[in-house]
Amino acid sequence: METLTVALGARSYPILVGRGVLDRGELLLPFLRQLKVAIVTNATVGPLYLDRFAEPLRRAGVSVSEIVLPDGEQFKNWPTLNSIFDALLAGRCERSTTLVALGGGVVGDITGFAAACFQRGMPLIQVPTTLLAQVDSSVGGKTAINHPLGKNMIGAFHQPQVVLADTETLSTLPDRELRAGVAEIIKYGLIRDLPFFEWLEANIERLLSRDPAALSEAICRSCRNKAEVVAADEHERGERALLNLGHTFGHAIETGIGYGEWLHGEAVAAGTMMAAELSSQLGWLDSRALGRVERLFHRAGLPVSGPNLAIERYLELMQNDKKVQDGNLRFVLLKRIGQSVVTDVASPAQVRKAIELRSAHV
Amino acid sequence: METLTVALGARSYPILVGRGVLDRGELLLPFLRQLKVAIVTNATVGPLYLDRFAEPLRRAGVSVSEIVLPDGEQFKNWPTLNSIFDALLAGRCERSTTLVALGGGVVGDITGFAAACFQRGMPLIQVPTTLLAQVDSSVGGKTAINHPLGKNMIGAFHQPQVVLADTETLSTLPDRELRAGVAEIIKYGLIRDLPFFEWLEANIERLLSRDPAALSEAICRSCRNKAEVVAADEHERGERALLNLGHTFGHAIETGIGYGEWLHGEAVAAGTMMAAELSSQLGWLDSRALGRVERLFHRAGLPVSGPNLAIERYLELMQNDKKVQDGNLRFVLLKRIGQSVVTDVASPAQVRKAIELRSAHV
Repeated sequence: METLTVALGARSYPILVGRGVLDRGELLLPFLRQLKVAIVTNATVGPLYLDRFAEPLRRAGVSVSEIVLPDGEQFKNWPTLNSIFDALLAGRCERSTTLVALGGGVVGDITGFAAACFQRGMPLIQVPTTLLAQVDSSVGGKTAINHPLGKNMIGAFHQPQVVLADTETLSTLPDRELRAGVAEIIKYGLIRDLPFFEWLEANIERLLSRDPAALSEAICRSCRNKAEVVAADEHERGERALLNLGHTFGHAIETGIGYGEWLHGEAVAAGTMMAAELSSQLGWLDSRALGRVERLFHRAGLPVSGPNLAIERYLELMQNDKKVQDGNLRFVLLKRIGQSVVTDVASPAQVRKAIELRSAHV
Repeated sequence: METLTVALGARSYPILVGRGVLDRGELLLPFLRQLKVAIVTNATVGPLYLDRFAEPLRRAGVSVSEIVLPDGEQFKNWPTLNSIFDALLAGRCERSTTLVALGGGVVGDITGFAAACFQRGMPLIQVPTTLLAQVDSSVGGKTAINHPLGKNMIGAFHQPQVVLADTETLSTLPDRELRAGVAEIIKYGLIRDLPFFEWLEANIERLLSRDPAALSEAICRSCRNKAEVVAADEHERGERALLNLGHTFGHAIETGIGYGEWLHGEAVAAGTMMAAELSSQLGWLDSRALGRVERLFHRAGLPVSGPNLAIERYLELMQNDKKVQDGNLRFVLLKRIGQSVVTDVASPAQVRKAIELRSAHV
């Protein structure tokens, strides 16, 4: 088992990564404020892992209640959130009870937001079971639900007490979801870690074939990058925005074609290619580098262009991006592979051009 | 104009109290991150004060949008909150836009929670127009909406940038609402400020007749008490819970008979009498002191007993109180007038007895 740390002063917490840690609920005991937890999972993950995970906790005397949500991004909304509140109240959960998110990014985001709001804040533990959640969404305290007009529009920063990532859960992950997770892994290489990008170029097939050592290395290197960025800028006043490479375009894709149609990681891959095109138009990314980025996404089986939405629709949806400042779109763009900036220098014409070059509507 | 400060390090903020400050929007300019605000108010307060308040801001070049909610505690819920999000998105509000709450406790609580969640947090300014909001709910960062099973059950801590309290707005306040505000004022005397309690005994009629000097003194002394408690314990790990004197019983009253039937301050007055009865049973408050408390509420025109709910219903509703720990009810009780504690020493029989003595069902 590897232990990484997200350094946030009094709110610092460990990320425990290893094979089989899901069966070791006792690892969580030091992080509980009372011997009572409510585990939130979904109808896909629950049958696979809920009993295995809850059993050692129950054996240790922890009162465990279970909340099972429907599976899918389209359920990351208020009615589902409210069903968590209903269950917490029915189960007499208190503000010292710990809420545990057992599942992928949707479960983690919505459960995290429930923990942030219930009785104005209760403790949270993240137990991510998808690659995307293990390398990205379970770490750093961002929580949210979607609004019909914007992805992750309603949410809070709420850091977990601990993150427990069992790499064995990836063995049951559908291929499509594995690839979606790889998109966020590639992101870290692109924004701030050239050696990691090069490692990915050399090891992408091992990763996709679920080689345990490759997966473990990719997860730890990703989490280390994420932990460093979050520690430096918890509330996204600056540097943390770099983690949103491809997300301005990506969120527009997800919102525009309906939540759940594309996986988040797929939208991020296509969105990152749009950001790369824009970087190339600005003269920052040369055609060789652009080709390397495209090739890596392609080898990972990820889309390298967006869906068939009108350009006007893309632009309209992007106006609700959380990085917009004084009405101006801001993008995370690449100075080169391994170096990124948040900038509003791209002209509207260049933005249109990038979307045009990288969407299926032409 | 008096300026008080809530000392919270980098998040410290001033409370500006004075006559006519509502017309001096320029006082807010130093607190805006961009020249754009969205003002949330309700259908009662809006027609009285919205134009007056917005005009100087517009003159100073601030883009102002307006969101008018229905008036009443029964609207402090998810659909109303979501209508704020819809309006913010439709108005292209950004995470640097400031949300302004212009109104009483309900407007302040729900607007504050909207600001806490929209794009994971936007700046907030509180402009309280009721006595209750000026002396209590606008200060300290507690925000929330109600859940059918529990008052203020879903919320966040989100401190404002500044609080602007115009004592002139109290001239249009209905008598019933004025008295409801007095309940929270009396609370400060009871929990930690004997000289203030004695001042209230001497000046309650001046306060109820809206003598400007008496109102101003009561507001400033209340805010000073609140600011001290919040500065010492922002997230209610300890001392801050004392501010909830009467609220465990009071929230049960509000939830039990339906939000909006009793005003919050009325429920707090009756709830405080239940807490005082319980304190008396424990031998802490003697009968003379109990009589003083009752007399002051009575002179203020506030209820000194709760409504006709079954005792079992009271007990059931109180189980969802945010102070419950390991299934045990905890109450704020009075050691004497001016000194309070949070405790779970009261027996179930004593709690029943206190409710029985102070509710209309017998």
